[in-house]
Amino acid sequence: MSLDAAILKALRSSPSRGVSGADLSQQLGVSRAAVWARMEELRQLGYDISASPHFGYKLVSVPDVLHADDLLSRLDGKQVIGRDIHVFQSTTSTNDIVEKMARDGAREGVVVFAETQTQGRGRLGRKWVSPPKRGLWFSILLKPDLRPQSSTQITVGAAVALTRAIQARTSIVVETKWPNDLLIDGRKVAGILTELRAEPDKIKYLILGIGIDVNVRPEEFPEEIRHLATSLRAVTGHQVHRADLAEAVLRELDQVYRDICREDFTGVAQEWEQNCSTIGREVTVTFGEHTIHGIAESLDFDGALLVRSQHGHLERILGGEIHVLPKPGRSKGSPRP
Amino acid sequence: MSLDAAILKALRSSPSRGVSGADLSQQLGVSRAAVWARMEELRQLGYDISASPHFGYKLVSVPDVLHADDLLSRLDGKQVIGRDIHVFQSTTSTNDIVEKMARDGAREGVVVFAETQTQGRGRLGRKWVSPPKRGLWFSILLKPDLRPQSSTQITVGAAVALTRAIQARTSIVVETKWPNDLLIDGRKVAGILTELRAEPDKIKYLILGIGIDVNVRPEEFPEEIRHLATSLRAVTGHQVHRADLAEAVLRELDQVYRDICREDFTGVAQEWEQNCSTIGREVTVTFGEHTIHGIAESLDFDGALLVRSQHGHLERILGGEIHVLPKPGRSKGSPRP
Repeated sequence: MSLDAAILKALRSSPSRGVSGADLSQQLGVSRAAVWARMEELRQLGYDISASPHFGYKLVSVPDVLHADDLLSRLDGKQVIGRDIHVFQSTTSTNDIVEKMARDGAREGVVVFAETQTQGRGRLGRKWVSPPKRGLWFSILLKPDLRPQSSTQITVGAAVALTRAIQARTSIVVETKWPNDLLIDGRKVAGILTELRAEPDKIKYLILGIGIDVNVRPEEFPEEIRHLATSLRAVTGHQVHRADLAEAVLRELDQVYRDICREDFTGVAQEWEQNCSTIGREVTVTFGEHTIHGIAESLDFDGALLVRSQHGHLERILGGEIHVLPKPGRSKGSPRP
Repeated sequence: MSLDAAILKALRSSPSRGVSGADLSQQLGVSRAAVWARMEELRQLGYDISASPHFGYKLVSVPDVLHADDLLSRLDGKQVIGRDIHVFQSTTSTNDIVEKMARDGAREGVVVFAETQTQGRGRLGRKWVSPPKRGLWFSILLKPDLRPQSSTQITVGAAVALTRAIQARTSIVVETKWPNDLLIDGRKVAGILTELRAEPDKIKYLILGIGIDVNVRPEEFPEEIRHLATSLRAVTGHQVHRADLAEAVLRELDQVYRDICREDFTGVAQEWEQNCSTIGREVTVTFGEHTIHGIAESLDFDGALLVRSQHGHLERILGGEIHVLPKPGRSKGSPRP
């Protein structure tokens, strides 16, 4: 852990009493002058740190910036996901950065955030809009001992983790749409892009890319998707602290990932089904020129969606375009009996 | 097509009559001096090209080197596989080179050969030995419209193509061992490494790596695998011309790949089953800590091996270690009745 991360961790561990410069100096094995210098640097970054002869240093408030040392200081160091964190001001796509790291032999669990992406992408090569400092755009390197066709477990697990973290920080209950969208009132608020490098029977590594529209303003979405997209700020009516949310997301992702690695996907799948806007609904699935129409019944052990087709067959859906049909019921204009 | 490839193609198209410098000059749109200069270059590379005022130029013999222009001149230009060919004297691994090309947006069908690899690899990260100019070590970039779990179709298809090409050029009937080994009398003579980059439901690109031990001498294999490996030279007792074999392999691979892309995997699977040392045999499959013991019955539509376990279940095998048990019968030392 860097000195800044250690200082922020120490300040967080004593929020009311504060920590004296002498204690910090001893605890971290550096001079009091070095501690003072780092405090000045942190203040420059926007951290409000009070200092008094009596109480020592206290963390009064943290700015709404993503700062790798800050994020690291919030985690307990025993996590796989988040054992190493990088924040870029701007990248093409955080998945690209993690891909490069993977090729250079990086350990699993490294997380790369960017304040903005110039070529953010979604599923099937679609563009993902990432306005500067308005969201959480990040990617994680994972090396699960899974076969390629089980990689949907990771996508589904990530949806569960995001759902938990968003609910904990904003009290919003999001819906999940198989396999990779998080919705609020039918509008997309977050997406998950899973890319993998594999042999036919074994994943070499997997890159989990996540985009959460935290404080994006309606006018920042491209016009053509404005009616389909939303942000946590738009729904709650107030700014959501991104670093706090990032911390919750990384903790929950780590928890879910451990469950999947312990071959305990069943619990994850059950939780996913509870939040799901797809299960039990009439759906149309299109892949290439094929279309399946039926009722989405459940997830299987690989994370595939099981759809009971109109002909009574149970079809395993691993991808394609899912369209959830509106629930049957009286239309607004129908006469009352 | 380069000038050298066009010259070699023209020489090949008229093996007995020869081609005059004037005809070549007109046909290729370059001066007779330029034709003459290229002939000199080709002779430097080891091509035996005769020239006479009466017959013009004739291709007498070609050297046992891999030369991209030569390989290109042998194909008809309508192939997907081999539409672009590169030959390296030495690389880490041809899969690595193709991976870089894929990231730079190369079209599918590009083939990279290396005369030797310093870090050739086999399945599951194992080392692959590639002594200089003794074999065919090459990789192909493919972009099939398949899901990741169907990538075994490509591995199986490659095994079929190699089997056909080796039989055509050497009359040796090789056996295939699911999913990626070619054997002669139980010893490995070629291997196939399929690596892919994908989203859970779609392959972005696939790199098909192939190694054929053409003229490798027994003492060139590492001692620990010497009893498990063989080469075409060791079996036939004579040197096999590598460029001729490469041509046959690329043609057959292109044919099989077209069949798979036309969703005609059934024919490929049937041909594979005929040459297979695995189907109908008692096998033990190990993956991680799991072991399945049973009879290998057939391939399914994804190229997975269907094994009837001792408990009567039909198991779909997508990977792991396959051990084919010896056929039941009298052991050599058993007493006769």
